[in-house]
Amino acid sequence: MRARPITAGSSPSSASDSPGEGRLMLHFEPAEYAARQAALDAAVAAEGLDALLIFAPESQFWLTGHDTFGYCFFQCLVARPGQAPVLLTRSADLRQAQLTSTIGDIRIWKDAADADPARDLAALLADLGLPATARLGVETDTHGLTAQNWLRLAAALPRARLEPASGLVSALRLVKSPAEIACVRRAAELGDAAYEAALPLIGPGADEAAILSALQGEIFARGGDYPANEVIIGSGAQALLCRYASGRRRLDAQDQLTLEWAGVWRHYHAALMRTVAVGTPRPRHLELHAAAEEALLACEAALRPGAVMGDVFAAHAGALDARGLSSHRLNACGYALGARFSPSWMEREMFYENAPAAIVPGQVFFLHMILMDSDSGTAMTLGRTSLVTEAGAEPLSRLPLALDVR
Amino acid sequence: MRARPITAGSSPSSASDSPGEGRLMLHFEPAEYAARQAALDAAVAAEGLDALLIFAPESQFWLTGHDTFGYCFFQCLVARPGQAPVLLTRSADLRQAQLTSTIGDIRIWKDAADADPARDLAALLADLGLPATARLGVETDTHGLTAQNWLRLAAALPRARLEPASGLVSALRLVKSPAEIACVRRAAELGDAAYEAALPLIGPGADEAAILSALQGEIFARGGDYPANEVIIGSGAQALLCRYASGRRRLDAQDQLTLEWAGVWRHYHAALMRTVAVGTPRPRHLELHAAAEEALLACEAALRPGAVMGDVFAAHAGALDARGLSSHRLNACGYALGARFSPSWMEREMFYENAPAAIVPGQVFFLHMILMDSDSGTAMTLGRTSLVTEAGAEPLSRLPLALDVR
Repeated sequence: MRARPITAGSSPSSASDSPGEGRLMLHFEPAEYAARQAALDAAVAAEGLDALLIFAPESQFWLTGHDTFGYCFFQCLVARPGQAPVLLTRSADLRQAQLTSTIGDIRIWKDAADADPARDLAALLADLGLPATARLGVETDTHGLTAQNWLRLAAALPRARLEPASGLVSALRLVKSPAEIACVRRAAELGDAAYEAALPLIGPGADEAAILSALQGEIFARGGDYPANEVIIGSGAQALLCRYASGRRRLDAQDQLTLEWAGVWRHYHAALMRTVAVGTPRPRHLELHAAAEEALLACEAALRPGAVMGDVFAAHAGALDARGLSSHRLNACGYALGARFSPSWMEREMFYENAPAAIVPGQVFFLHMILMDSDSGTAMTLGRTSLVTEAGAEPLSRLPLALDVR
Repeated sequence: MRARPITAGSSPSSASDSPGEGRLMLHFEPAEYAARQAALDAAVAAEGLDALLIFAPESQFWLTGHDTFGYCFFQCLVARPGQAPVLLTRSADLRQAQLTSTIGDIRIWKDAADADPARDLAALLADLGLPATARLGVETDTHGLTAQNWLRLAAALPRARLEPASGLVSALRLVKSPAEIACVRRAAELGDAAYEAALPLIGPGADEAAILSALQGEIFARGGDYPANEVIIGSGAQALLCRYASGRRRLDAQDQLTLEWAGVWRHYHAALMRTVAVGTPRPRHLELHAAAEEALLACEAALRPGAVMGDVFAAHAGALDARGLSSHRLNACGYALGARFSPSWMEREMFYENAPAAIVPGQVFFLHMILMDSDSGTAMTLGRTSLVTEAGAEPLSRLPLALDVR
């Protein structure tokens, strides 16, 4: 089937219909995309779906290379077994899809006071020959499909069987190919380099703003990407936070600085976390650091093929609770990583109590030990990213785990 | 009503119940937050709602200061007229809400294989005395409420009247207070400084990676924030894109570089856009730049109290179509700005054909002229942010509009 834009007004005359032709920015070989497509076709067919409506930017990127923040608007990639996928997006994303993805058939919906892109999607599905009563998997667990757009979708497809199917692509993309692992390793190098660029700036009187600029700037200077969520930087009482917030401060003579960042290459993340002691560390810093290091190593030992994610959480909780730190730890100690888009670099699979997901080679996980002692106002964190191999966890960072004191 | 965490396991013993106490990171005075609360109370009451379920991070930030990317998970702020708002969030965000917001009553839901935070929200609403049949406004047009979480919400509140109410807070936050305008002006200063840091690096053979590092690094170094979407940087054929994509290149001897960025202060954005000619500009660059400058000034002349957003789009289309450029422009020429969170710095209100929203003093808009000539492969963009005053548009950037050639 030939591409036929729904509205032709804003499509450039040089639009290409052939996947691969003029694609300047694909990061993987055609054979790799073909293999991913084949794996998804099998998964969609096994579920008995007529089509999968792909709304997650991570899924679109994995399947076709499509690289954009255009998912902030209604944007859907229609995948049917054995057929080339079809994209519905806004005019501002037409060239983006042409240059960054393998997608050959791109349809445009137009901004207007009465615009309803879900109706355009319904028309597209009919145009593709799908019956009104089709069984359609929908990625619902994604920031690429808001509640409002779900309601529009349900209204525009009243007779379709819409079935949440967020796990299909996300399960496939959990296990990385050799080419993806090369991206993750490059990301890990950028993460280490970023810390080494920032560390000399940390000390009494230092400005958090300069530290963040050096850390994130190093990743950009080496060709890396924005992280899918902001780097976490906080000192003093804010060192106990594990989210970014606006507002930089200067470090005190005796202080603590928590950093959580990620090297990012082709959107693949390799996350790291450290709390740096400024001045003379408190005894509590040393205690908590020793516990965090022990727990991290216990988690990495548990992170091996044959285990489930809950086993890794149990290692975390066991190590920390044995030291009487159960009230200072979080209810999760990490998550899967991959090529992620805003607002979060976390994949869906997390390490929490009894988490059932299986550990298999080729997966990439971030393990973070976060100990926040509110009574004494002491923060301590330690985290790094590992690749799962047949032999177990391979930490991808060459940074030492010892407490940095500046 | 006193705060009573749903699960106490991970709440720090120093949790404060009093708004304002120990709030280290509020960016506005208590009186300003009180005025916002009063305005929202009136709007919620006027709609006849029993409560508003606030899922948009921009709305939570505006109403209470709550500053986090924790909306990547289920997170809801319950606002009832005349009562203090109540937050339901994960344990990782408890301290974040305590330190960054005015919220005094924070409840926690816990990660688990069978976790359903929407059920926790239903229990919270019952605990607050709201009947099962309550009329609840819901912010549905936000990346803070995914389709999956909407489906959970609807299932957990089967008898409630759930009504989309995305416009209540977003309409209120469109008109900026003097303190907010001060943030926008500071953001505009950062945006100008970022360009001035990057411009000297632009030229034949320059690395896009170094340019991005300098531009974004300058904003961080001055205490600014991450933008809510990535800075757009592209040269060669990619200069015709208007989204970020991974992968940096070096500039050719004759080239073009498109940049769209924003100074960001306390999450308030002041966006800018430029295409820089590298080497000798093509005649088409000069033609398109002249058209873009004329169109931008026409839009700024149309951006005045009493007009609607469609009038500004008409000025844009009129100026460009008169020059025969209708097939090279976009279907929108800008949007409202404010304190925004990932994945987009765009407010909901956009300049498109017949857009009905009224222009009033205190609003802030980004106007972008984007001319992409696919036939010749020529890109030209020009954009800046204006404050609406009684006298009309006040551009907030001091950068010249002339074409930069490097």
